[in-house]
Amino acid sequence: MSNSHSPRCAVVLFGSGRADGSEIQEAVSILIHLSRLGAKTQYFAPDRAQVDVVNHLTGAPTGETRNGLIEAARIARGEIRPITELIERDEDALFFPGGFGAAKNLCDFAAKGAGYGVQPDVARVVHEFHAAGKPMAFCCIAPMIAARLLGTAAGGPGVSITLGPPSPAADVASALGATHIVTRVREAHTDRAARVVTTGAYMFDRASPGEIFDGIGAMVESTLELVMHSKAPAPAR
Amino acid sequence: MSNSHSPRCAVVLFGSGRADGSEIQEAVSILIHLSRLGAKTQYFAPDRAQVDVVNHLTGAPTGETRNGLIEAARIARGEIRPITELIERDEDALFFPGGFGAAKNLCDFAAKGAGYGVQPDVARVVHEFHAAGKPMAFCCIAPMIAARLLGTAAGGPGVSITLGPPSPAADVASALGATHIVTRVREAHTDRAARVVTTGAYMFDRASPGEIFDGIGAMVESTLELVMHSKAPAPAR
Repeated sequence: MSNSHSPRCAVVLFGSGRADGSEIQEAVSILIHLSRLGAKTQYFAPDRAQVDVVNHLTGAPTGETRNGLIEAARIARGEIRPITELIERDEDALFFPGGFGAAKNLCDFAAKGAGYGVQPDVARVVHEFHAAGKPMAFCCIAPMIAARLLGTAAGGPGVSITLGPPSPAADVASALGATHIVTRVREAHTDRAARVVTTGAYMFDRASPGEIFDGIGAMVESTLELVMHSKAPAPAR
Repeated sequence: MSNSHSPRCAVVLFGSGRADGSEIQEAVSILIHLSRLGAKTQYFAPDRAQVDVVNHLTGAPTGETRNGLIEAARIARGEIRPITELIERDEDALFFPGGFGAAKNLCDFAAKGAGYGVQPDVARVVHEFHAAGKPMAFCCIAPMIAARLLGTAAGGPGVSITLGPPSPAADVASALGATHIVTRVREAHTDRAARVVTTGAYMFDRASPGEIFDGIGAMVESTLELVMHSKAPAPAR
């Protein structure tokens, strides 16, 4: 391993729960794999209100107001900071769990479909990591962030991603100049040129938690392999 | 394996987040291990308001009112039912994640200390599983439920449990006629007579998520081993 320290990994959350925030099982699976592989994790989230709050028992909106950073702290056991404090040079890799809430808040694909944009703080960090050649990992619906920012339609270099099985979302990503790769649930896809790793996770909506865990494990391993071949490790924290 | 079907496992949650509900990483770790071992999981929770709601970023109470079943549905991806629908004969084993929220809501140890009691719906299911000789697993602070209900102080048969390292909680459990066993974070303790399996989990508050995951894995494996030696498998769901 070219880096002598533990890899420093930033994980971007927002809220806590698949319908209005980050998918909890995906977020925890990323954390466990990073921990087992000796990486150090720091969570970040935009410090703003959620687009909505959903009753996860019924699926109905509740009309409440909740802050996505404060709710994400439930997953992070309090160890989370505003995304404005996420600095590329302090980290070796960047991770995005999915969840429908990611498509509502980290970008607005859920509301706008093909014309969606990425939340500005998220766009900043993705552009910074990309410019520095540092690896980024996206799972479930979160690869839509990479498609929007790195696809050729926005003047990006192009990127190949997986969103799991074929889907309307994958068609939108393809129209943005991203290449969609169909994988199996336990697999991850790596774009070595773009240094982007993706896995379908709960885009396979009938997959078991164990299968999701294994697919995310493949994504985390591939991402840390890219870190090992980075030229500019982050300074020790 | 004496049972021809997949083990049916009930997991009791309440809320979502360690400070006012179930510890999320523990709950997800139980789910992943059960899934990988081929078990089928059904979540349950008491359908009642949380004792409190805590801002997990600051640790301060928020004054909000939230329902513990509805919030737990965030972890369960909606697949959760009121604990009043939890029937012992439909399940092979029963699991309790921890979290300070468990000590506030599933019992009231957090508020009352040595004089604590167990929430009546929770006490019902624990007594039913115990009477049927079906295995139960408790992690982190949740073994206090077993100590209260099965310890000799309440006329129970006695039970040996681990709460991880020595602690004031472990002293209270001992005073109730439970035997406290000190373990390491990656270990689980099995009381074969009481058919109770426990692991310290985040009672080791400086442990890594990977260590917690492994300790819970040991607990889940030991519990399913007890299921394999049960005489009365639950009917196929």
